[in-house]
Amino acid sequence: MNQVFVGISELYTPQNRLERAAFAVQDGRFVWVGAEAELPEAYHLWPRTDLGGHGVLPGLVDAHTHLVYGGDRLGEYLQRARGESYEAILAAGGGIYSTVRATDAASEDELYEWAQARAQIFLTQGVTAIEIKSGYGLLPEAELKMLRVIRRLEEHLPQHVFATLLAHVIPKGWEREKYVEMFCQELIPEVAKTGLAEAVDVFCDEGAFTLDETRRILEAALSHNLRIKLHAEQIAHTGATRLAAALGALSADHLEQTTPADWEALAQSGTVGTVLPGAAVILRKPFPNARAMWDAGVRVAIATDHNPGSSPLYSPWLGMQLTASLGRLSLEEALLAHTENAALALGRADLGKIEPGARADFVVVDSPHALMPLYHWGHTPIHAVYVGGRPVFPTG
Amino acid sequence: MNQVFVGISELYTPQNRLERAAFAVQDGRFVWVGAEAELPEAYHLWPRTDLGGHGVLPGLVDAHTHLVYGGDRLGEYLQRARGESYEAILAAGGGIYSTVRATDAASEDELYEWAQARAQIFLTQGVTAIEIKSGYGLLPEAELKMLRVIRRLEEHLPQHVFATLLAHVIPKGWEREKYVEMFCQELIPEVAKTGLAEAVDVFCDEGAFTLDETRRILEAALSHNLRIKLHAEQIAHTGATRLAAALGALSADHLEQTTPADWEALAQSGTVGTVLPGAAVILRKPFPNARAMWDAGVRVAIATDHNPGSSPLYSPWLGMQLTASLGRLSLEEALLAHTENAALALGRADLGKIEPGARADFVVVDSPHALMPLYHWGHTPIHAVYVGGRPVFPTG
Ligand SMILES: [Zn+2]
Ligand SMILES: [Zn+2]
Repeated sequence: MNQVFVGISELYTPQNRLERAAFAVQDGRFVWVGAEAELPEAYHLWPRTDLGGHGVLPGLVDAHTHLVYGGDRLGEYLQRARGESYEAILAAGGGIYSTVRATDAASEDELYEWAQARAQIFLTQGVTAIEIKSGYGLLPEAELKMLRVIRRLEEHLPQHVFATLLAHVIPKGWEREKYVEMFCQELIPEVAKTGLAEAVDVFCDEGAFTLDETRRILEAALSHNLRIKLHAEQIAHTGATRLAAALGALSADHLEQTTPADWEALAQSGTVGTVLPGAAVILRKPFPNARAMWDAGVRVAIATDHNPGSSPLYSPWLGMQLTASLGRLSLEEALLAHTENAALALGRADLGKIEPGARADFVVVDSPHALMPLYHWGHTPIHAVYVGGRPVFPTG
Repeated sequence: MNQVFVGISELYTPQNRLERAAFAVQDGRFVWVGAEAELPEAYHLWPRTDLGGHGVLPGLVDAHTHLVYGGDRLGEYLQRARGESYEAILAAGGGIYSTVRATDAASEDELYEWAQARAQIFLTQGVTAIEIKSGYGLLPEAELKMLRVIRRLEEHLPQHVFATLLAHVIPKGWEREKYVEMFCQELIPEVAKTGLAEAVDVFCDEGAFTLDETRRILEAALSHNLRIKLHAEQIAHTGATRLAAALGALSADHLEQTTPADWEALAQSGTVGTVLPGAAVILRKPFPNARAMWDAGVRVAIATDHNPGSSPLYSPWLGMQLTASLGRLSLEEALLAHTENAALALGRADLGKIEPGARADFVVVDSPHALMPLYHWGHTPIHAVYVGGRPVFPTG
């Protein structure tokens, strides 16, 4: 399907800023981007959509979410704000374990419906590509159940969906060694065979998996041609970031406790460093030093880490704003971190951009100024969202 | 008008929590609040509204905003995030001065329309009472123009509106002494005579008014029976907080640079200490130590400080969440700070509460759990908003 979009007051991407812009879309991808006055003749007869003088931004990419889950953790959230620690709640069988129970109790239809409603909120916020992790199942069949729900989301959501198998915590009643063995020898091969996930992630931290266990799981993933990612140095400094870099992971995420040596390793390897502002602020952890990482040459990404425990965050804009304020990025850097760099954390160089060859996913802003949503805290002025050149919000 | 509301899954106020609750409203005020099963016979025949199993919270009070202004400061906002300081931009004639120019260029109709649109966003967020300051006029006629716009908002908005005359900065081209004299001898008497404002506020800080100038303005206000408030210790420690306490101000606001002696003074006087999380985070200032203030006995309030420069914040929920995370209040304390305590900062003991005698302003939450909006970051699940017992959102 061929289409030309005109009437763009300001087209902003971190690489390019055009006034009175236009672009042409063919088969869901940009084929030409430039000043409206310079639209080549070849496109003059294509069907036209006038974007009415609005600003336009690339679609946002959320490369780290736990969008599929049962229940909420409102009670625990209130408790933590009164001073109880996340680690203590987890150790007492709450936290992740309480979501595991609620997810287990839910049917696949329920899990699908709840996640779909959350994804719809993300769509209204301009998120056109979203990664979703398993990890609230723990037991093999329960993990596969989550991955099947993510598969259904992939088939039905307007957004691009990326599925990741997550080794989250050791289930109650399992020996660590047995669980890691099962994960490497049963779950990963099964997931690789069925194609239910593209990547494997491990929560490598105090109270979760050790560095050695993490290495075994990641190596099993690599041996089955799955991509890898890590939850790294959120609570304690474990060496996970350097392991991620050494194994060529797509990304190392969290990074609250990282050091300059960790940043150096990420910069050298090209592994994306993903900061998760929601979890850092909501758990009252030190905010990851995004400024220093960026200056050290790390490709910094930002993600919501949406989950019912540490980060019930629905707005990527708020994530960018918090990272600008508390992690001292500029807002333009933060936008790059939630578009193009986030796409690299999914291994996709053709998302989060507005340039020929990229997928035509874009956000029409409710202002002539494309960066206006970054300026509005707590209310996002978005007029419309397109995926592959087709309007997906608002609908009807 | 008599009315009974039933079908409330959870009624939450910081003083009280009821399941399966009901209340009766007469002439815009609560007259009875309790368990639905105990609704007195006297109310059985009153017209009934079933709130459908939703949670209910008191209406939020925003006791510090600059809602009336022309233009935006997106460009300056992006500059600041790249490292330029607020103080340097102000000293160079940008910042507040650029909003003064844009406000001067706008008609009263335009200013009204823009502020009305912003107030509508606040309404969807559950804000049922809102203070609005002048201060972008500076010259006497321009300040009165702003106050007339606020008067129109007071007449037409569904919310309760409170007007404050603000001495913001010395206009370019004026001698300080002349301006302070004009403010005390012309503007304050005129405002007192016409009733265009209930209170007077001064931005007492580096680059704005000195402590001595502030004292003169506040004393002039008191001599005309106007209430007083202060912008205190945002940029530098000036002694403004203790001045506010000594003069019996309704509130001292900002407080980033306050000390234990300041908190002690507030606690002794009963002057409300209002923290403005938007400005603190967006300007990358030290976050006010809300926890220590609370523990020192200060009545802490939270407000959005909505303004186009330091705090383009549209969500009181985000303000409460940031104050819980960065100022270490519990979320229940934060809610008290944005309801009942905020109402005290406006001199109103009958707002921000759900109890007999209080105004029947309340928020119907899009969940059976009344505190759910505090758990959702960046997306506020609100089902409906009532002012004086009448539905004001959604309308139509
Ligand atoms: Zn995570
Ligand atoms: Zn202010």
